[in-house]
Amino acid sequence: MCGLMKLGLNLSFAVKRWLDPVQLAGMVKNDFGVEHVQFTWDLIDPWWPDEQRDIMIDQYKQAFESEGIEIDATFGGLASYSFAHLLAPSKVQRDIAFLFFKRAIDMTVRMGGKVMGTPVGGMSYDDARDLSRRKKLYEEMLAYLRALAKYGKIKGLEEIHIEATPLITEFPHSPEVCIKMMEDLEGTDIPIRLLVDWGHALYKPLLKEEADIELWFQKCAPYIGSIHLQQTDGLLDRHWDFTHEGGIVTPELIKKATTEAGLDNLTQYLEVVTIFEEDDDKVYEGMKKTMDYLHKELGC
Amino acid sequence: MCGLMKLGLNLSFAVKRWLDPVQLAGMVKNDFGVEHVQFTWDLIDPWWPDEQRDIMIDQYKQAFESEGIEIDATFGGLASYSFAHLLAPSKVQRDIAFLFFKRAIDMTVRMGGKVMGTPVGGMSYDDARDLSRRKKLYEEMLAYLRALAKYGKIKGLEEIHIEATPLITEFPHSPEVCIKMMEDLEGTDIPIRLLVDWGHALYKPLLKEEADIELWFQKCAPYIGSIHLQQTDGLLDRHWDFTHEGGIVTPELIKKATTEAGLDNLTQYLEVVTIFEEDDDKVYEGMKKTMDYLHKELGC
Repeated sequence: MCGLMKLGLNLSFAVKRWLDPVQLAGMVKNDFGVEHVQFTWDLIDPWWPDEQRDIMIDQYKQAFESEGIEIDATFGGLASYSFAHLLAPSKVQRDIAFLFFKRAIDMTVRMGGKVMGTPVGGMSYDDARDLSRRKKLYEEMLAYLRALAKYGKIKGLEEIHIEATPLITEFPHSPEVCIKMMEDLEGTDIPIRLLVDWGHALYKPLLKEEADIELWFQKCAPYIGSIHLQQTDGLLDRHWDFTHEGGIVTPELIKKATTEAGLDNLTQYLEVVTIFEEDDDKVYEGMKKTMDYLHKELGC
Repeated sequence: MCGLMKLGLNLSFAVKRWLDPVQLAGMVKNDFGVEHVQFTWDLIDPWWPDEQRDIMIDQYKQAFESEGIEIDATFGGLASYSFAHLLAPSKVQRDIAFLFFKRAIDMTVRMGGKVMGTPVGGMSYDDARDLSRRKKLYEEMLAYLRALAKYGKIKGLEEIHIEATPLITEFPHSPEVCIKMMEDLEGTDIPIRLLVDWGHALYKPLLKEEADIELWFQKCAPYIGSIHLQQTDGLLDRHWDFTHEGGIVTPELIKKATTEAGLDNLTQYLEVVTIFEEDDDKVYEGMKKTMDYLHKELGC
């Protein structure tokens, strides 16, 4: 049913709403027409005790397998993004984050996913404004990622994808920083690649004239492993569905930017994040309309 | 420096921004003039391994003690709110949540806090729309809370505060449901009381004519243990600071509603939640202006 582009889905829309694995898998396959998903850690927290966590992992794995859906990756969600992780000011917290990401790798492999993906964390006010601290934390973060690649290889993971975020207090946050970071991570035990999110790449307040998806895709193409699709106005990190007014992401731009950068072989996972108090039926309706629209307009 | 009303602060504003305990304690005391705080689980995740978590708890405890600030409570934040917890559809996940809240009690007691507070979780789409499932999950949630009160008493906790949220898929979400739930929880080993959040109580899309703080305070007064203060327009759960345009929470209303319900003895903790991509300096500036304004206007 697909053309060149690949449309996938991050399960973020389901958080606190559709929590039955069988029902969710059926919705993803039959209502949204999707066969490739990223499983979000907002549905299963990597910290949960192994024995209970594994029961839930196996339920999702089986439900999605039964529908013929591939869980390509597991990916950090809103809960995980609330912590400073590998860029925290204290070594104790960075070590905790290292353990957290190892647990996320365990979860990914057990779920049958090939990729573990996440932003790496964020710097505190002071660290972000101190060039020598930025450099030190950056180098240490690279070392943690190399160790995670080593751990991932042993466990059977295939790739790690690092998400670029729209914050100067995080790495990476611009095409240039992405390229540098990917170059610095060459030769890891399993490949570490880049996830570019449309809404982050189009975030004008930080990026100014670099808030240009064609620039991002063309500069970063050799390093991009997957893509997050969202509707946005470029003024905040919206994660809107495509029924929202005021969006600047058009099917024409998606096709043009992707094809011209030679990225048609990658999966673009729609990642919709709603406010908690939004009505479930409205969320579903927005998702259904969005997926129908994207399938039709993108020809995939 | 205070009149009758007590102004406290939830540390939510500091998440991913001010992560040095000593600096944060100094800011809270000297810049914001506050001596009573709720520590948010977005700064320390109750799941973190005990040994490392306890190092961080002790650092915060010592820093805040040195400034003469009381950590009255620890409270669930954005990360924790991303999960369905005690109202999840699967028993496995509800049991995981029970363990999570026990860990939060451990963390609270070690930090010297007297109160552990949180929303209880959320129901899935199907459960929320099935009256018999709602009743069953509600009853089971009460049983978990009774067991948490028992555990808390053993550990030396003094109270548990349950936050009312603006979602029909969660308990409690209206004055009536609050009263029922508090009545159902009478006689627990330590008291379980109610936290009312201004923005949740004023959320018009759900509450309609019950989006009235005077109604909430007067009906729920006997059960309220603490209060979250935020600026809001009543259209979404904003958690704005008080510099924001379009807010409907005025100092006059705060004073009138609080005094008339006989709640002047309770602490109202400002809980500001910003988007992650907001600039640190702007967050600080908004917090500073807000705290100066509230101290002046509330006379506390």
